[in-house]
Amino acid sequence: MITKIHHVGIVVRSADEALKFYRDALGLPVTADKVVEDQGVRGVLLQIGNSEIELIEPTRTDTGVYRFLESRGEGMHHICFETDDVEAELEAAKQKGIQVIDEKPRRGLAGMICFLHPKSNHGVLVEFAQPLPEGH
Amino acid sequence: MITKIHHVGIVVRSADEALKFYRDALGLPVTADKVVEDQGVRGVLLQIGNSEIELIEPTRTDTGVYRFLESRGEGMHHICFETDDVEAELEAAKQKGIQVIDEKPRRGLAGMICFLHPKSNHGVLVEFAQPLPEGH
Repeated sequence: MITKIHHVGIVVRSADEALKFYRDALGLPVTADKVVEDQGVRGVLLQIGNSEIELIEPTRTDTGVYRFLESRGEGMHHICFETDDVEAELEAAKQKGIQVIDEKPRRGLAGMICFLHPKSNHGVLVEFAQPLPEGH
Repeated sequence: MITKIHHVGIVVRSADEALKFYRDALGLPVTADKVVEDQGVRGVLLQIGNSEIELIEPTRTDTGVYRFLESRGEGMHHICFETDDVEAELEAAKQKGIQVIDEKPRRGLAGMICFLHPKSNHGVLVEFAQPLPEGH
């Protein structure tokens, strides 16, 4: 079952610049700010209600996020839906004929996650996330 | 103060097609489905936690939503932040030098609303919404 919007991912050239809006103008608190070396991105999370905004800044040019930025410019990149059963969501999507990026859930920042392909999903890059219990 | 993600707006060619994913695969309940003649769109709202997904299908070709679809294709269109003071949010944004689409809040589907311009806001079309009291 889908329980909420976990986060909305926004690709930006500079997280520092974008924070002037999301943190300083909107007043959203930053809950995480780190560089994920193997993905070549800096990710900044801001709390909004019981959801998050994820600012994504590429730190290398050999990444999908950098290519997104070059081809589409800054903007909304993906939406992540929280679920209590990520495997079931993924199977249900497959059975509806939706092309997936991850054949199986994998460990991600938001817990066990998977992505569906935007080309077979009305142009929206959808992530499912099932948070892990505290301490995992 | 920003309290939550009110909704995420997604432009689609056909809401009926998109409902196969959001309603049928994800199981999100449809809370509204109507054509707004003066805006030339069909809007479908689906509940997700305490937020909504808004599917936006153009019903005419002389609309901004239709032009978005033609130039960018289907995909995420805007994000709406709920606030308890839409005028204050708009003023704060202006003071940060952010270009706005609406100089003053106006009546919209989600209450009193206004839009900021994506070009001065990291490519994201942001809406602020202050819901009206019940019955207004």
